[in-house]
Amino acid sequence: MLKIDIHTHILPPELPDFKKMFGYGGFIQLKQCPGCTDFDMVDDSGKFFRRVQENCVNPEVRLQEYDKHHVHVQVLSTIPVMFSYGIKAEDGLVVSKLLNDHISEVVKSNPKRFVGLATVPLQDPKMAAKEAERCIKQLGFKGFQIGSHVNDWNLSDPALYPFYEACEALDAPLFVHPWDMRGQDKMQKYWLPWLVGMPMETSLAISSMIFGGIFHKFPKLRVAFAHGGGSFPFTIGRIQHGFDSRPDLCAVDNKVPPKDYLGHFYFDSLVHDPKALKYLVELVGAEKICLGTDYPFPLGEQIPGKVIEDAFPNDKETQEWLFSKSALNWLGMKKEDFAK
Amino acid sequence: MLKIDIHTHILPPELPDFKKMFGYGGFIQLKQCPGCTDFDMVDDSGKFFRRVQENCVNPEVRLQEYDKHHVHVQVLSTIPVMFSYGIKAEDGLVVSKLLNDHISEVVKSNPKRFVGLATVPLQDPKMAAKEAERCIKQLGFKGFQIGSHVNDWNLSDPALYPFYEACEALDAPLFVHPWDMRGQDKMQKYWLPWLVGMPMETSLAISSMIFGGIFHKFPKLRVAFAHGGGSFPFTIGRIQHGFDSRPDLCAVDNKVPPKDYLGHFYFDSLVHDPKALKYLVELVGAEKICLGTDYPFPLGEQIPGKVIEDAFPNDKETQEWLFSKSALNWLGMKKEDFAK
Repeated sequence: MLKIDIHTHILPPELPDFKKMFGYGGFIQLKQCPGCTDFDMVDDSGKFFRRVQENCVNPEVRLQEYDKHHVHVQVLSTIPVMFSYGIKAEDGLVVSKLLNDHISEVVKSNPKRFVGLATVPLQDPKMAAKEAERCIKQLGFKGFQIGSHVNDWNLSDPALYPFYEACEALDAPLFVHPWDMRGQDKMQKYWLPWLVGMPMETSLAISSMIFGGIFHKFPKLRVAFAHGGGSFPFTIGRIQHGFDSRPDLCAVDNKVPPKDYLGHFYFDSLVHDPKALKYLVELVGAEKICLGTDYPFPLGEQIPGKVIEDAFPNDKETQEWLFSKSALNWLGMKKEDFAK
Repeated sequence: MLKIDIHTHILPPELPDFKKMFGYGGFIQLKQCPGCTDFDMVDDSGKFFRRVQENCVNPEVRLQEYDKHHVHVQVLSTIPVMFSYGIKAEDGLVVSKLLNDHISEVVKSNPKRFVGLATVPLQDPKMAAKEAERCIKQLGFKGFQIGSHVNDWNLSDPALYPFYEACEALDAPLFVHPWDMRGQDKMQKYWLPWLVGMPMETSLAISSMIFGGIFHKFPKLRVAFAHGGGSFPFTIGRIQHGFDSRPDLCAVDNKVPPKDYLGHFYFDSLVHDPKALKYLVELVGAEKICLGTDYPFPLGEQIPGKVIEDAFPNDKETQEWLFSKSALNWLGMKKEDFAK
């Protein structure tokens, strides 16, 4: 069975000294650990952020690991900490181009096994649209990964319309990833920004796109949300009821009820719990859920697709949707694109 | 069938001018609308916060409305905006006492139909413990409502231990309600602090109590969480996987896996969606879910218990748990306490 993992992250093995390039700090650097294959991500003041392994940067190691799990395709995107939406737009473009050029090379090295999602400098949506066009038309990307918000703009913000227009025109799907978790300064212990803040971010992104009428204004936009939609799927009743009971607050930009959009957009399968995945399938349909693992990070699924097999052990049809058919629709690709 | 609604809010029909009493502002006032029975909640600069109806303050109207829906018991608590954790502790005590004295009078007027949850000045946990004792021993309260955090303390904070100790000693349950939504300044449109921020707050509260070892340190504490647990139930897989994969970050204060606590604490039924309620029952058991409506507010359930009947139309046993048996266990009360 063809298996496509729509949620994997990759970095170039070397990052330039952006602080030196741009004249201001706040960037991540990669330092190979002495005598081993791991890399430390450190900020440009030297503060440790996260250790990553060789599989974060080495395509060969990635494929060897995925061969073991019989997963054929990795959809590649950068790590959200690289989005760089907070810096000068022209510098953000430099960062985006560097990351995109790298992913493009990796995909070209093995186009049957890798698909690329580009990153764009969304702090300047017109500039982002231009880089988006370069990525799709010249570099062979299939779509984009964006953050759950862009500085002070939620994804409903009209400032972002030029980028959404470009995505529609390019027939390129979006993968929305939580990042820059709001309120995280108040939940520093126990990894709570990742465990509590990120699911909120994803619900914020989905709710903003619904209430802002984005799916209505850009009906051809194909959007997938990370981590099974975060806190959105279980709280859709509350969101719908909010819309019903206070349209003066909720229906100001879009009169379509939130539940009407269930089945319109996509989710990855990364919920780490078979009961939760079954609930999600019941809510939006298997046709809208794609294998996603957050590879190669520890909060990801260590055996890609295990939650799918655990949730639907005897249901090959549902498995086929989740392992590849939904992803093919979302990506706008065909099974044959990955034929050996 | 006995029905107990554990999540209803009430205010006194008149609030004093706290700004004048304490010499600083930031308080809610109630202004009866000229020529009608509604009240406007305004801050002490006169800024409109929310309009409430007579059922927010009038016990008779409340019971008439609940008679129509065949719900016998309302568990009463204040509105989270009244918590006043951010003011001087001694003033917080004054506010708490005023609200508690009022609820106590309402309960005494009809003890077969009303149960009281008190509020306490948690910015000073020892002071809170003392007021807690007064409420249980002298005023006839059964338990307490607290916020999802207390200023900069999450519910894991050792500063709160004296209050938890008091609750155990008093055999008094806690109802945890989201409030003061972190990050809300970045999501002002579309009522998102209520639709996205509150579910996050509840997950933050549950996760903090789990990772902080509160259920372990205070094993007799009976805690119920509002809104069906907010975003916690659907993201428990992620929370458990975080604990498994990064114990260095998550298991620093408590080695017990998060999933081991499922079935240990309670949720109200306020999820506004039968599929979501069924998922919750599957996750924690009907014995841990209690009817809760957020009455009398628009984001509450307008027909108390409709979601329970919709989710389990032919399952009287599950209905009995959700409508009253779970609540009786949580409250530490008996069916006979409410006999006509």
